[in-house]
Amino acid sequence: MSHNSFGHLFRVTTWGESHGPALGAVVDGCPPGIRFRQEDLQVFMDKRKPGQSRFVTQRREDDIVKVLSGVMPQEDGSMITTGTPVSLFIENTDQRSKDYGDIAKRYRPGHADYTYDLKYGIRDYRGGGRSSARETAARVAAGALARLAMPGITIRGALTQIGVHKINRDNWDWAQVEENPFFCPDAAMVPVFEDYLDGIRKGGSSVGAVIEVVAEGVPAGIGAPVYGKLDQDIASALMSINAVKGVEVGNGFQAAEITGEENADEMRIGPDGKPMFLSNHAGGILGGISTGEPIVARFAIKPTSSILTEKRSIDADGNEVDVRTKGRHDPCVGIRAVPVGEAMLACVILDHILRDRGQNGRTR
Amino acid sequence: MSHNSFGHLFRVTTWGESHGPALGAVVDGCPPGIRFRQEDLQVFMDKRKPGQSRFVTQRREDDIVKVLSGVMPQEDGSMITTGTPVSLFIENTDQRSKDYGDIAKRYRPGHADYTYDLKYGIRDYRGGGRSSARETAARVAAGALARLAMPGITIRGALTQIGVHKINRDNWDWAQVEENPFFCPDAAMVPVFEDYLDGIRKGGSSVGAVIEVVAEGVPAGIGAPVYGKLDQDIASALMSINAVKGVEVGNGFQAAEITGEENADEMRIGPDGKPMFLSNHAGGILGGISTGEPIVARFAIKPTSSILTEKRSIDADGNEVDVRTKGRHDPCVGIRAVPVGEAMLACVILDHILRDRGQNGRTR
Amino acid sequence: MSHNSFGHLFRVTTWGESHGPALGAVVDGCPPGIRFRQEDLQVFMDKRKPGQSRFVTQRREDDIVKVLSGVMPQEDGSMITTGTPVSLFIENTDQRSKDYGDIAKRYRPGHADYTYDLKYGIRDYRGGGRSSARETAARVAAGALARLAMPGITIRGALTQIGVHKINRDNWDWAQVEENPFFCPDAAMVPVFEDYLDGIRKGGSSVGAVIEVVAEGVPAGIGAPVYGKLDQDIASALMSINAVKGVEVGNGFQAAEITGEENADEMRIGPDGKPMFLSNHAGGILGGISTGEPIVARFAIKPTSSILTEKRSIDADGNEVDVRTKGRHDPCVGIRAVPVGEAMLACVILDHILRDRGQNGRTR
Amino acid sequence: MSHNSFGHLFRVTTWGESHGPALGAVVDGCPPGIRFRQEDLQVFMDKRKPGQSRFVTQRREDDIVKVLSGVMPQEDGSMITTGTPVSLFIENTDQRSKDYGDIAKRYRPGHADYTYDLKYGIRDYRGGGRSSARETAARVAAGALARLAMPGITIRGALTQIGVHKINRDNWDWAQVEENPFFCPDAAMVPVFEDYLDGIRKGGSSVGAVIEVVAEGVPAGIGAPVYGKLDQDIASALMSINAVKGVEVGNGFQAAEITGEENADEMRIGPDGKPMFLSNHAGGILGGISTGEPIVARFAIKPTSSILTEKRSIDADGNEVDVRTKGRHDPCVGIRAVPVGEAMLACVILDHILRDRGQNGRTR
Repeated sequence: MSHNSFGHLFRVTTWGESHGPALGAVVDGCPPGIRFRQEDLQVFMDKRKPGQSRFVTQRREDDIVKVLSGVMPQEDGSMITTGTPVSLFIENTDQRSKDYGDIAKRYRPGHADYTYDLKYGIRDYRGGGRSSARETAARVAAGALARLAMPGITIRGALTQIGVHKINRDNWDWAQVEENPFFCPDAAMVPVFEDYLDGIRKGGSSVGAVIEVVAEGVPAGIGAPVYGKLDQDIASALMSINAVKGVEVGNGFQAAEITGEENADEMRIGPDGKPMFLSNHAGGILGGISTGEPIVARFAIKPTSSILTEKRSIDADGNEVDVRTKGRHDPCVGIRAVPVGEAMLACVILDHILRDRGQNGRTR
Repeated sequence: MSHNSFGHLFRVTTWGESHGPALGAVVDGCPPGIRFRQEDLQVFMDKRKPGQSRFVTQRREDDIVKVLSGVMPQEDGSMITTGTPVSLFIENTDQRSKDYGDIAKRYRPGHADYTYDLKYGIRDYRGGGRSSARETAARVAAGALARLAMPGITIRGALTQIGVHKINRDNWDWAQVEENPFFCPDAAMVPVFEDYLDGIRKGGSSVGAVIEVVAEGVPAGIGAPVYGKLDQDIASALMSINAVKGVEVGNGFQAAEITGEENADEMRIGPDGKPMFLSNHAGGILGGISTGEPIVARFAIKPTSSILTEKRSIDADGNEVDVRTKGRHDPCVGIRAVPVGEAMLACVILDHILRDRGQNGRTR
Repeated sequence: MSHNSFGHLFRVTTWGESHGPALGAVVDGCPPGIRFRQEDLQVFMDKRKPGQSRFVTQRREDDIVKVLSGVMPQEDGSMITTGTPVSLFIENTDQRSKDYGDIAKRYRPGHADYTYDLKYGIRDYRGGGRSSARETAARVAAGALARLAMPGITIRGALTQIGVHKINRDNWDWAQVEENPFFCPDAAMVPVFEDYLDGIRKGGSSVGAVIEVVAEGVPAGIGAPVYGKLDQDIASALMSINAVKGVEVGNGFQAAEITGEENADEMRIGPDGKPMFLSNHAGGILGGISTGEPIVARFAIKPTSSILTEKRSIDADGNEVDVRTKGRHDPCVGIRAVPVGEAMLACVILDHILRDRGQNGRTR
Repeated sequence: MSHNSFGHLFRVTTWGESHGPALGAVVDGCPPGIRFRQEDLQVFMDKRKPGQSRFVTQRREDDIVKVLSGVMPQEDGSMITTGTPVSLFIENTDQRSKDYGDIAKRYRPGHADYTYDLKYGIRDYRGGGRSSARETAARVAAGALARLAMPGITIRGALTQIGVHKINRDNWDWAQVEENPFFCPDAAMVPVFEDYLDGIRKGGSSVGAVIEVVAEGVPAGIGAPVYGKLDQDIASALMSINAVKGVEVGNGFQAAEITGEENADEMRIGPDGKPMFLSNHAGGILGGISTGEPIVARFAIKPTSSILTEKRSIDADGNEVDVRTKGRHDPCVGIRAVPVGEAMLACVILDHILRDRGQNGRTR
């Protein structure tokens, strides 16, 4: 059962609310012998951190991740994983004190307020409680650890669409992703995004986005038919991110539109004598098992539900109310979802490498 | 761990290959006290059965499902579930004997031949073995049982797109779905699908499709943050179906294109004094928990990989070969995926009802 | 969740009732590439089979196990596992037709009749239904498969006590175990068991037993702190066998009586230059992880609850009744539990080998 | 998979080492709506706390448990669980700084030093690292929460044997348990234990013990055949406690010695018109399902492995060494295992109540 855990051999359990004292993750099954420094985790935390540009929430959190267990400290300040659970701990430092009387009772449209109340009969309304995107900080910390366990695998993400504005894939340049506040791989699109999002932001509105995550260097043969498919577990992991409404792998929904001839990934023997695919419509996965080609997945994020426009709703007492969500929100929450998507992909891939190694004994 | 199981409290484990003696499912956790007849399962088996029209594979299988355990037979020929595992058993009757020498070694593009060999070092190549869509017969049987355990919930599916041809949603009529071989809810689109697929079929080609599945009557409050989200488990279940490349819930990928104002589902108190949503962009799920509105999900199926056109590939010995897939194939495997999608949705919803009841003790 | 499954990477799900058409196991995660013949499984089935001597139930079952999936048949009649689920199938052939009116309502003391009814509100009373020891046939089949996957590991069991009669451990001779109907390793005790059990049997009574199971050749380093301890999983597996009331590892309960000095297993470097334990009070497990010494576990089986003496009970309608259990029963059900205990130990060890290989990547 | 988690619907994951900064537990699936104060947890922490008498380790830890998530703080200082994960956090305050050079390399007999090194290739040797009994503090915290969720159920434990000295069960008085440092229910035995353990302690030796845990008020019908048996999960939970070598339920190993007539628990209709058992040899469980009688389990703890007597061992470099374990140890670690056993029993029972409620929908 997994209310708050994902993965099997590399198993991540997260805990914590937006406005509690702290949040964190317990990573069970982390392979032993991984040597790293706190900075190796922090670099990914910083990518997700709020307040990095005017296009994301202005909440101020340092998001310093501490490692409380599962490592043996070394004299040079590094640590080595010991195979026991790694407890990752992040303090909440900017729980701005305020009067929550307003949202304690009123159900904000598009938020989980109404459904949490229905399910549990009680809800931590402070900053969204457990349903806040702040929970994703713990995911990024766990994902950073997963990356360290797979040094030969590169996992990257990019934002490919904001609202109706889509990048031109011919302009794709991974180097650009680090150069703009959108994780956008198409330099030409950056000013368009800036203008568009400035308008959204100033209007107190919000907009959706599409993110693409790619894993290169993944060994062929991981994944497992029939209900442990690699693409299935990627879909599950990405759909678990707050505000995600769609997930696709390789050609994705476009695959519905084309013929078998167009969709086929042909193979040849490469110049190095090894099997080689001539295309990657499959997104690196056939029958739920990796082909050795890059794993390619995309996910759609809905517009942030917190907007300044008043919307009709009800409150916990059954009264009709109008709700206008003030506060420090992301005009496009999809931006900060890029490092989160990468982290989830990293965790799924490591879990499947370990699972495959368990069943099939192929050493990697 | 789940290589071949899905669900937690309602847990389905399937087994069997395309050309073995039989296949089946073991359903663990089926609630006790459900009275049914074999025909109550068979009706769903028959929807998925091959050979129903010229647009699906001409393999002939009766797909009679037998119940081998977990039920107490009654004098009137019905059975009552006892809470112990229900073993559902389906014989394979049309494993046409033929020489498999050809495909035993050659990797068919788009199939799982290459990846199974890489993963396991051995593969049952007869009819696709475990990766054959025949495995979905076991899913449909399990899904039928899940439906019986939730009499107040209606689960239906429809095909909304074949290739580039999309239905007009204004014409949606559930009654039409049973009236044509495509499970198409738009009567006007049926002749278009027929013409288009006849061409595809005669050309030995194939094409993709999009299927929508809807669950009505689902109680509000099921699902579980953060990694047991209802939409997450639906995404996982649908992505586990053969040939699925994309999954979305509610607005899905379209949510990326719109603003928070457009995406909001407002609420009022209905004429019956109960909370009421004025729209359902969320597809019935907020924060991973059901709202009480219909659950709406869609999935994209790639074109059948088996086509008559010769494609470049390699064989298990590392030779370059050209492969042309003969045999009895579905020109649009998406059609028969409709009852499979329904079955998966039924299983996920029942599992979450039981999970929620366990944690929260709300009787339904 | 596991109502009817055990294990994680080597995961066994059983189904079936005493008097249904069949019972079986689905083994998920069986390593690929294991070549075997049906006889390699059947030999273990035959050890557990009823009717082998006058000291066990006279029910007649052939207990022929069929392999319905997960294997590729070879020309010489053998099969090779493919890594997909192995469905093991055993028909029930001796469901003697009789009038169950009697036990359908009356709760037999010591049986699960009362508790099943309380839990599920319905119960398959025919021959004990799911709670019958017949379910253990499926365990033995799965255990046989587990053994085949670990050719270097020897797993054996022996009965060491019937009622108050305990073997003399100085007489222990594994070769004797196959030579008598009790799986008794002490030849001198066989006539004592015979006399004693003849008396029990003729009096329509029953008696308990203790079984010891031993695994040799288990690699050091398997098991996992803190809640996946090897001894913990062995305790769980053995306690899951019908009628087991106690489990111990190594010194077991005797460890409570002795001092740290007496209990210590000292180490030296052996003549082969490898670490060597000078004793094995620990039963081959320290901190939940195997030491490389033989794994030694024991379990206590209660006397068969079915006896000819009338006992006070109640029926499903709340009437006080006296119950006398007629039928074909084991005077000492512990005897047939020996191959079952071996099977459970085999499954647990293989599961942990695969889990350890997954997490730690040590090839074996 | 569960290296460091136990339970399914009430799922506890622990983390932390003896000499790290902290340790803790994440409790996932805690039912919402439980109102409690920190003191309600602390009272159980204090029972397990070191340094309470001269018969337990003199390490000084306050063992203050903090609740970091999953609760809504109330104005009166209490908190209410919200259904989200409860993070329980305990700082380590007495990690006495010392030179570990000695034990870093030398394998202490009876400890997990050798096996951790073999498994992981690295080990946190400071105070035993993850294998230290300090981990059980987290279990006690989680168990305290489980108790709060089951107000009608009483869970108590008592020490019944130290070395060869067993209590007289006729003297059993629960009130005595709180009156002596041994959790001993037989007042007459207390001076015997004192004398005996004083000798053990002064000699730098150690000795084993037996603990009995009892749950009263457990509803009939929880547990689940066949691999989710209540007794099976109790055996697993108790065997997971450090140093436990044996577990039994009800009559336990004694059941092997008696006849079916002696072991039967007869039933009648009680004066209140309800079913009533006339004895409880079964320990409250039949067929893996609770009968409504008290659940009774016992477990054997081996003598503390740390003793002053020099013992032969080896070191990590393969040298033969003699090891004498200095430090602050429990002469009878079984004493402090009493509250740990209670905690494990509480967690298992709550988990099964939730599981049963999920599958069967019986509201409690």
